Amino acid sequence: MSQAPDSSTGTSRRGFLRQVGATGGAGAMLATMGALGLAPTAEAASREPVFHAPRTGDLTLTGRAAAKVVIVGAGIAGLTTAYELGKAGYDCTVLEARDRTGGRNFTVRGGDTSLDLYGNRQTARFTDGQYLNAGPARIPQWMTTMDYCRELGVPVEVFTNANANAYLYNEKAGMTAPVRHRTAKADVYGYVSELLAKATNKGALDEELTADDRERLLEFLKSFGDIGARLSYTGSTRRGYRVDPGAAGTPGVALGPVPAASEVFASGVGRYFAFEFGYDQAMLMFQPVGGMDRIPAALTRAVGAHRILTGAVVQQITDRAAGVSVSYTRGGRTRTIDADYCVAALPPNILARTRHNLGAAVQTALEACRPASAGKIGLEYRSRWWESDHRIYGGITETDLDLAHIWYPSYGHHGRRGVLVGYYNTGTAADTYARLAPRDREARAVEQGVRIHGEKYRSELVSSFSHHWRQTPHLEAAWHSLAGGPDAAVFDPLNKPTGRVYFTGDHLSYASAWQHGAFTSARRTVTALHARVLGRG
Amino acid sequence: MSQAPDSSTGTSRRGFLRQVGATGGAGAMLATMGALGLAPTAEAASREPVFHAPRTGDLTLTGRAAAKVVIVGAGIAGLTTAYELGKAGYDCTVLEARDRTGGRNFTVRGGDTSLDLYGNRQTARFTDGQYLNAGPARIPQWMTTMDYCRELGVPVEVFTNANANAYLYNEKAGMTAPVRHRTAKADVYGYVSELLAKATNKGALDEELTADDRERLLEFLKSFGDIGARLSYTGSTRRGYRVDPGAAGTPGVALGPVPAASEVFASGVGRYFAFEFGYDQAMLMFQPVGGMDRIPAALTRAVGAHRILTGAVVQQITDRAAGVSVSYTRGGRTRTIDADYCVAALPPNILARTRHNLGAAVQTALEACRPASAGKIGLEYRSRWWESDHRIYGGITETDLDLAHIWYPSYGHHGRRGVLVGYYNTGTAADTYARLAPRDREARAVEQGVRIHGEKYRSELVSSFSHHWRQTPHLEAAWHSLAGGPDAAVFDPLNKPTGRVYFTGDHLSYASAWQHGAFTSARRTVTALHARVLGRG
Repeated sequence: MSQAPDSSTGTSRRGFLRQVGATGGAGAMLATMGALGLAPTAEAASREPVFHAPRTGDLTLTGRAAAKVVIVGAGIAGLTTAYELGKAGYDCTVLEARDRTGGRNFTVRGGDTSLDLYGNRQTARFTDGQYLNAGPARIPQWMTTMDYCRELGVPVEVFTNANANAYLYNEKAGMTAPVRHRTAKADVYGYVSELLAKATNKGALDEELTADDRERLLEFLKSFGDIGARLSYTGSTRRGYRVDPGAAGTPGVALGPVPAASEVFASGVGRYFAFEFGYDQAMLMFQPVGGMDRIPAALTRAVGAHRILTGAVVQQITDRAAGVSVSYTRGGRTRTIDADYCVAALPPNILARTRHNLGAAVQTALEACRPASAGKIGLEYRSRWWESDHRIYGGITETDLDLAHIWYPSYGHHGRRGVLVGYYNTGTAADTYARLAPRDREARAVEQGVRIHGEKYRSELVSSFSHHWRQTPHLEAAWHSLAGGPDAAVFDPLNKPTGRVYFTGDHLSYASAWQHGAFTSARRTVTALHARVLGRG
Repeated sequence: MSQAPDSSTGTSRRGFLRQVGATGGAGAMLATMGALGLAPTAEAASREPVFHAPRTGDLTLTGRAAAKVVIVGAGIAGLTTAYELGKAGYDCTVLEARDRTGGRNFTVRGGDTSLDLYGNRQTARFTDGQYLNAGPARIPQWMTTMDYCRELGVPVEVFTNANANAYLYNEKAGMTAPVRHRTAKADVYGYVSELLAKATNKGALDEELTADDRERLLEFLKSFGDIGARLSYTGSTRRGYRVDPGAAGTPGVALGPVPAASEVFASGVGRYFAFEFGYDQAMLMFQPVGGMDRIPAALTRAVGAHRILTGAVVQQITDRAAGVSVSYTRGGRTRTIDADYCVAALPPNILARTRHNLGAAVQTALEACRPASAGKIGLEYRSRWWESDHRIYGGITETDLDLAHIWYPSYGHHGRRGVLVGYYNTGTAADTYARLAPRDREARAVEQGVRIHGEKYRSELVSSFSHHWRQTPHLEAAWHSLAGGPDAAVFDPLNKPTGRVYFTGDHLSYASAWQHGAFTSARRTVTALHARVLGRG
């Protein structure tokens, strides 16, 4: 995504506002800002691209018959297409190759089964109330996904993306024990502040900063790094305590020793800090109460289960002058469905292997969507030792081991059991785990987790379930990489219909791998198709 | 609290561990670390001061009668004292001057009434399910409060202490509009990184840093400040978007313009960043589902409501050789209760005005506890416009206005209505609001809030309820400041019993104003009293 600020109009606006502020006071300023679209409410209102959902009457009031639409794929994009078109009375049928809706939005609960492309069969043995969100698991508060949760009545709760009490552990950098996120942060911020204060006081930044700037910067650094009036970092209560402060007589014992700056930089802990600054990853994040699949479940109910055929594997898509034909196999039989339009909401790598008459440019575009690997393992424990022993209530431990991340559950706090995500990795690391038998995946993840958490990581384990998207039938991708972004020329054929066939999915968005991408892409497709049906396309 | 790290033993430990690691491998290392108390689990286990709760049989198995204890004050410290002593069968009676238990743990719901020392009467008109935690409202995950929630079966949920989408607004610094926390952070971190990178590359830190250090520092700054290979901050997607990225064709429009470094430092936004680095304030934080008073409610149930007399205002505490007498008025009559021990769990400023024979040193200590002011207003809105218009789901907007902070509710997301905390201020600002009539407090808070959020802050408002602790009968303090800390010599008389009278409360802890302080202080008192009864004191 572009990082270039929109400074072309901004600078002159700002200058203008200064003038208004100087002459008219705050009231005049706010009124003017509102007019310019800069006041917070106006800004907020304009932040999202406008979507006008199809409405009851759009078709009937203009004397149009309900067009028939066949949608291939009941993931978030396909379901949303059916849901939004359904609001205007379109006659939608959704074909889904797998035995459940939701696509990669897959919440694993006790009794769920899987069979991967290597032939590994698994049955989850999680106890009641425990689950693993094997696919999407977090929702930033700004994403459209939140709007669908509200509209569909799916209750949400906080998903913890960053936790001061979680650990960082870089074994390759020579760390001999994990360090709490808060401790690493105190040390890095402390030394960064000390160094910048020193450089400032040496006059090294006199070209860049005025005297006022320097004074303000130093004031900021004192608080930012907790470096005190001496501008020197010697530790901080922010690091945490070996014995927590409590009653009189128990002032707390600070966590020590404080490593030298050299040691802190060499440990590489700072590489994880920027993660939570990202527009996509900054807190707050949310999750549906009870599992991410509450979203496709609600969409499925809203669309109508009778409109969705699961176990229907599409064999061929044929665009004709007056309609489309989609043939599929289901229960050993092959059938063909004819419709006015088709929306292809299946993964591009799967569609690339499906027979179609959509032309070479479409095929080239589909093949240019590069499938990516990712995997997760859910580890169910008989106790929530991370809460009781480590005081970690949700959040992520970051490592340079090939398990990459350990996620602590953001639900069921203080309950008896809990499910950790024992690895969430991508690329080669994910493929390495995928090639192992499920029990060996578990063993590898646990062996690494023990290095961070000690023997309870093994001894309290009850069962596990691992899932790898690149090896999942009918999906074969965690997400897709589109070189140059979805608007690159090669992908043009997917961003417009070919005859009566439309394409949709998170890969055709600037939020690949996010449900937001699927929702916004579906909205775009629905808008285009509906406009065409209404003769405005 | 001490910021001095424990470096005396740490350094030699670290050196020793390196040697073990080099010769014995990771397994030997971990075993050794465990023995030294450094492995995470061992560290965690030793983090909290050990508390052995009194147990059934402690008294009866040693042939002792259940001692009778009168506890003055049914706040968290008093209730916890009764609860813990009750586990061993002590005969506890709790006297509470107010009409409810919980002390400053006060959750305001529709129908609740108050009368302050100025004579202002209020009745909360919040709708069902809406509430204001007028006192404590957040629980860091490390605090003992979490253990009591677990033990008492009080469900918890995340309290959001920091939110990238909340605003910062320093009017006195000349800001003409609020800025999102994430935007301010991107700008400050960006410029700090750029400046430190420049100074490093100029050689200004060659005395402090080795060549390796410098390389690692620059690598860190690139990611930390999003300053790219050119080591120059020119904005970042971390700032947020004017139009969010979505489907193909909608790459997003970055938020602009990017202010100059001088402007960013002059705005003073950086002063708020360190708040969430504090050991007490770092995320994650929690709150009981349904209101903070679920904690005293559960304690009250566990103690037994029949043991608690509300509306009982203590008049005199008399320590005698063989027992204590506590006289109190209730329903217009004065009664005296005799017991083996008394635990004074009422605010020190109130106890200082109560007749007692505990001596001059106790009186001096009580008077040295300086009561502090704090107030909050709950504003109920007919819509959750901060969620729909601003995408703020919980968290805090920080200002230099006298409302200080605006808190967005961490519960009821996507519901119809919601209660904001329209001010949470302390000291002079709190007293200024307290002196106003409730309707004028509301008007002042709303007028300021409009500057940040626009007219909806006024037009969507339904009702409000304000509460000020310094002006609350029988409490008259939000918390207390103890110069030199609770272990300063002047407070000695409160940290041990005077005859048969014990003192407890959060003021006698290193977590003043936190329930953790009250819980740990009560545990300390219970431990001392129980040991004495068992002849081990």
